[in-house]
Amino acid sequence: MKLRSIDEGELIAAIRKEFPSSDPQTLRGIGDDVAVIKSGAGLLLLTKDLLVEGVHFRRSFHPPHLLGRKSLNVNISDIAAVGGKPRYALLGLGLPARIETDWVEEFFNGMKSAARDAGVELIGGDLTRAVKVFISLSLLGEIGKGHKPVFRNGAGAGDGIYVSGTVGDAHQGLLLLKNGVRFGKDTEKDTLIRRFLDPRPQLSLGRALSAGGLASSMIDMSDGLSVDLGHVCRESGCGADVYHEKLPLSAELRSCSQRPIWVALHGGEDYQLLFTVPRKKEPLLTKLRRKHRITLIGWIKKEKGVFEISFRGRKKPLLPKGFRHF
Amino acid sequence: MKLRSIDEGELIAAIRKEFPSSDPQTLRGIGDDVAVIKSGAGLLLLTKDLLVEGVHFRRSFHPPHLLGRKSLNVNISDIAAVGGKPRYALLGLGLPARIETDWVEEFFNGMKSAARDAGVELIGGDLTRAVKVFISLSLLGEIGKGHKPVFRNGAGAGDGIYVSGTVGDAHQGLLLLKNGVRFGKDTEKDTLIRRFLDPRPQLSLGRALSAGGLASSMIDMSDGLSVDLGHVCRESGCGADVYHEKLPLSAELRSCSQRPIWVALHGGEDYQLLFTVPRKKEPLLTKLRRKHRITLIGWIKKEKGVFEISFRGRKKPLLPKGFRHF
Repeated sequence: MKLRSIDEGELIAAIRKEFPSSDPQTLRGIGDDVAVIKSGAGLLLLTKDLLVEGVHFRRSFHPPHLLGRKSLNVNISDIAAVGGKPRYALLGLGLPARIETDWVEEFFNGMKSAARDAGVELIGGDLTRAVKVFISLSLLGEIGKGHKPVFRNGAGAGDGIYVSGTVGDAHQGLLLLKNGVRFGKDTEKDTLIRRFLDPRPQLSLGRALSAGGLASSMIDMSDGLSVDLGHVCRESGCGADVYHEKLPLSAELRSCSQRPIWVALHGGEDYQLLFTVPRKKEPLLTKLRRKHRITLIGWIKKEKGVFEISFRGRKKPLLPKGFRHF
Repeated sequence: MKLRSIDEGELIAAIRKEFPSSDPQTLRGIGDDVAVIKSGAGLLLLTKDLLVEGVHFRRSFHPPHLLGRKSLNVNISDIAAVGGKPRYALLGLGLPARIETDWVEEFFNGMKSAARDAGVELIGGDLTRAVKVFISLSLLGEIGKGHKPVFRNGAGAGDGIYVSGTVGDAHQGLLLLKNGVRFGKDTEKDTLIRRFLDPRPQLSLGRALSAGGLASSMIDMSDGLSVDLGHVCRESGCGADVYHEKLPLSAELRSCSQRPIWVALHGGEDYQLLFTVPRKKEPLLTKLRRKHRITLIGWIKKEKGVFEISFRGRKKPLLPKGFRHF
């Protein structure tokens, strides 16, 4: 392996090159959020997300109960985004020697509640001392009968681009926390803060979109709409137009942010689904709308390049500005 | 969950109680080194081991190439100890912002060499910034046809207790490193240091011992003979006698240590296999001895309690003194 830097994207590209898949059982490997492998008659899904104190969370912001939930839920979200069913979790946990037992208890209580919500079983892991808290969770899932995994690379020209829920709330919640706002003072702000501290993975929507090949591509928005739509377009070999006027903004975001469109386009950690649907399958979304908030925000284009179109109709490149490590 | 302390054993017991397995597919879960789940017609094995800078390794001691190998190999060793075949790895890696690209390259080169040795494929993971290097590796394996997983809890009275290779070398190597000895100065010391820096998982022996139910119980010695034999006896509901005169000590350990027996009984990180074999199956070991060094070190007893018997025949309790976190 030869590296020029340890920029995350470059490092992942180098690892991918260094560890090419030679196994015909491996359908998706390094570079995707979820690895997909054939096992007997079915498909296994494997994913891992790290949460590190000072990088992904601060102990002063994040109640341990909600951090326990989030540690599992961000992994469940990766499984949701391919239309899978999460099953078994392994937890790697690094704890400072002087951490309070209350903190540890509440962390596990939170993880238990998220596991119960999603029908996940914690089956093992490892514990260690560490300078800062770190959480390394691996999740094994499966693709159920009648479902096909949905990947990032299936978007086609003319497909509608959809998002679930509202976008930007979690990032605005993080901004509020960083500005010293704390939970429990203001209902609107609490809503946004909760979206950051306790995101909800879109499991049932993900599974519905994977049934019968309804969605042509799908990803969960962890890094932000601009970054995650960029992944979909790059891997699908296409472009996209996204309209400001179509973005589903919450009343809370509009009320608390001075630039809600920017936050909606670039703020990460919403863990809502971003997916594309071919025009001829759009009528099938009607039934889903009864249970889920789904919003059309633009269309996939044959020409490469991702663009944003302002309220006034001005079109400009949508540059990826979401959350990045390193 | 209610904790009195975050002692590792107590925390694992609390987690095990808080996350009871309700899934009939789960044959082994929290508390074992390897989780075992039914999947279709086969059995899946899942394991995770953490390696943290300053706790499990020091960057000044451990060449990155060998650390990359060890990160994967300690997980492969867990799979070896149930008689399984390792298949797919997920890597969680925390890197300080200023780490050298050379270090990262060599770490991945090492991991690649261990993956190639064992036929393992790296299929995904996650990267993050961190204050200290941490490595969180999850490994998925399987039990092949004609093999049955071997657990810690199958030892029976009268079974012979065996170890593979030699014991204590890795710990003596660590002691040398801590005393300022470095690699490349002395052949004997190099052998011991290498046992610590680059342990070799006993995959082919583990698989041979799981064929036809040859071993009644098995564990890999990561925490030290006294601790790991304690696990086997506690979970099997039995006791053991271990004879100093039978312990397989390397010439290098005898030459470099002033108390080789103590190091062999309590030093961890050898990653050799500790296993028990019923008397009537002992003749079947003859064939294995052609390829593997296997030594009888004592016998399982019906009466609880693990004992060591000195060269002079003095018997005393063998207390667990191996490596412990927290």
